[in-house]
Amino acid sequence: MQRETVRYDVTDGIAVLTLDRPENLNAFTVQMANDLEAAFDEVSADPAVGAVVVTGAGKAFCAGMDLSSDGNVFGLDETLRPTMQDLDDHFDDPAIISGVRDTGGRVSLAIYRCTKPVIAAINGAAVGIGATMTLPMDFRLASEKARIGFVFGRLGIVPEAASSWFLPRVVGMQNALELVYSADIVDATTAKDMGLVRSVHAPDELMDAALALAHRFTDGRSRVATALTRQMMYRNSAARSPVEAHKVDSLAMFYTSVADGKEGVAAFLGKRAAEFSSRVPEDLPEALRDL
Amino acid sequence: MQRETVRYDVTDGIAVLTLDRPENLNAFTVQMANDLEAAFDEVSADPAVGAVVVTGAGKAFCAGMDLSSDGNVFGLDETLRPTMQDLDDHFDDPAIISGVRDTGGRVSLAIYRCTKPVIAAINGAAVGIGATMTLPMDFRLASEKARIGFVFGRLGIVPEAASSWFLPRVVGMQNALELVYSADIVDATTAKDMGLVRSVHAPDELMDAALALAHRFTDGRSRVATALTRQMMYRNSAARSPVEAHKVDSLAMFYTSVADGKEGVAAFLGKRAAEFSSRVPEDLPEALRDL
Amino acid sequence: MQRETVRYDVTDGIAVLTLDRPENLNAFTVQMANDLEAAFDEVSADPAVGAVVVTGAGKAFCAGMDLSSDGNVFGLDETLRPTMQDLDDHFDDPAIISGVRDTGGRVSLAIYRCTKPVIAAINGAAVGIGATMTLPMDFRLASEKARIGFVFGRLGIVPEAASSWFLPRVVGMQNALELVYSADIVDATTAKDMGLVRSVHAPDELMDAALALAHRFTDGRSRVATALTRQMMYRNSAARSPVEAHKVDSLAMFYTSVADGKEGVAAFLGKRAAEFSSRVPEDLPEALRDL
Repeated sequence: MQRETVRYDVTDGIAVLTLDRPENLNAFTVQMANDLEAAFDEVSADPAVGAVVVTGAGKAFCAGMDLSSDGNVFGLDETLRPTMQDLDDHFDDPAIISGVRDTGGRVSLAIYRCTKPVIAAINGAAVGIGATMTLPMDFRLASEKARIGFVFGRLGIVPEAASSWFLPRVVGMQNALELVYSADIVDATTAKDMGLVRSVHAPDELMDAALALAHRFTDGRSRVATALTRQMMYRNSAARSPVEAHKVDSLAMFYTSVADGKEGVAAFLGKRAAEFSSRVPEDLPEALRDL
Repeated sequence: MQRETVRYDVTDGIAVLTLDRPENLNAFTVQMANDLEAAFDEVSADPAVGAVVVTGAGKAFCAGMDLSSDGNVFGLDETLRPTMQDLDDHFDDPAIISGVRDTGGRVSLAIYRCTKPVIAAINGAAVGIGATMTLPMDFRLASEKARIGFVFGRLGIVPEAASSWFLPRVVGMQNALELVYSADIVDATTAKDMGLVRSVHAPDELMDAALALAHRFTDGRSRVATALTRQMMYRNSAARSPVEAHKVDSLAMFYTSVADGKEGVAAFLGKRAAEFSSRVPEDLPEALRDL
Repeated sequence: MQRETVRYDVTDGIAVLTLDRPENLNAFTVQMANDLEAAFDEVSADPAVGAVVVTGAGKAFCAGMDLSSDGNVFGLDETLRPTMQDLDDHFDDPAIISGVRDTGGRVSLAIYRCTKPVIAAINGAAVGIGATMTLPMDFRLASEKARIGFVFGRLGIVPEAASSWFLPRVVGMQNALELVYSADIVDATTAKDMGLVRSVHAPDELMDAALALAHRFTDGRSRVATALTRQMMYRNSAARSPVEAHKVDSLAMFYTSVADGKEGVAAFLGKRAAEFSSRVPEDLPEALRDL
């Protein structure tokens, strides 16, 4: 898998994905969508990776769709007139993937299915898809220089990348609607006050803060338990009732209790640090593979 | 369509709906429900309207159900003993509409399906249905004199108008339950602290603030993109998974990209203001009409 | 029904459930799960009870699963390899209940189906299941000495008790993920800042505050209206669309309007206090029994 637009580095079990078109403010292209989709699937597949931090090379995080590229910037096949039925019936058909499906959404779904915690380190401008791609990430840490804008409304298009599923879960409906209707670019402090950003950092402290958070979530932790926790939080939050969540919980508790949970309890009783051995994805319980 | 209880004025593309029974503190009647339902459907149908502001004539916003009216204040047919099956099977039957279905809910559903941003300018008391009718509105701006109360518990009845779907999305579950269990009337500042109200304004500045917000959401914006954005935010937020949102997004991005989106990109590249031409509802994509 | 681990006292219509293993910091056992499930079902079944407060005996609220007990602390049948289909098909089979289903989740579902408001008075450490069991409670009031921790990640297991359904509804997704990934124990003030705790109280004022809140929600209120309100808020919040909520609302408004609602309106018009007579569960409308 070639990655032209995203650097992928792993240090101490934390993958850092760096959007890497600094001369274009890391503007998003179809190639970057493909690269990000592949990178998140690699994070999910690599047992050596415990968590992932996403940032941008240079002064921007991601300035949005690259509108300077030649031709059809969105990669759509305008000869089509797609219906919902087409999406339902041909979701994974190459012609639908490349000609109809929202490129940002393909990235969001790769992040959604990721089995490791995901942290956005927003170092500068995060605009359009640069803003919406951070929503399926679990945390948004921002540099004081960050600027975030759901600017779609200014371009005659709509917020995408499944942002309408994620954004109200993070900031509530009233804030979510103001962000998308206004299409304004807000600074880091405003974004924090709205609940969009977790914390604001000096520019030269942002990556250290993101990496420290990643280690806090992975060091001495069970990889399988963390992977299941992530998937349970997103999926169960949208369940029709807690009865559905209880079924998933029961399986997840069962399989973690008879694996890393035994070491966890023994370590607790022995007043020593636990040493968990599970690997992701290898040791994910079969019964919860399709979670 | 006669409107006895709601004034309907359009200025500069913004509709202002004024609850207009000031001698009764704009208390809600079956006639007002019908008038509001018709007014919001007219907002949706009128391409000249870009957004809507709702306020009250005189010193109240809406003091709740008009309990002073003669006879059956709720307009129910007490000879019925409705079941959920009745609602499922006869949702649009006149006897069910007039004899069983919650009048406030009919208004909420008209607001929910509205294709334009909706702003509540709460000028005074908003109590009972006067409070719940503001929840499917996108924003609640309050005068310093506003008082908001979900007082149903004091009357032996339940919060209605689909408020249990909307309220937790705005203020979170713990605040939502306190508001409805306590049935207290809270002031504007308390309502803002709970996240219910977006902003608090001096009484004589409330309407200007609401109209300014409406213009911020409409001037120089694509009508079709805004309509789709509104519907996506509410509907996708309740989807079982982001995969469902991604399908809707893909269609909405497709159809806006090949229409107003072309002007948006051209204007951005030309460093000029975009001039969008789409009309709502005429130009809503066929594939997303039933969103 | 024997209750070995939970005290059950009713005063002035408010039930107080006290987790009662103070010598073990009220650590959770399978017996306590059974006792809590029975206690909440008794609250639901007893028309003399209007609301319930849950607290801990001694200095802790609940220090989590009792890991000091002999043998299989989670009560699982390790000879099984349960699948989702097993849970779907045999949800109420004794072997699945005792050998597979999460004990904390059984308690959460009993709280979820409770027909009275539920208030947690967190007097001290609330850790693991001691934290998650408070999430399906409507309010969390905390002593200044409270410490709350979703510590599952440190033990190699996952957050349970349907917490992934409830927690994001209370604190939003970003805070929810930080609480469960970090597995940190936070103090009362931090928990309040995150929206997890409603209010913080001096240790000797906690129970008075909780009881006062319980009375505020029950004195002079319709028991049927309150029961329906609770169920509508949780269930409708997760409905696919407000149309579903509107159907439930219509039935709930219909049946309360022709019962306690008549007294409520008469009292309002007569400028006197209402005297509601409905009893729960006896007077819950048949059409909404399965809500």
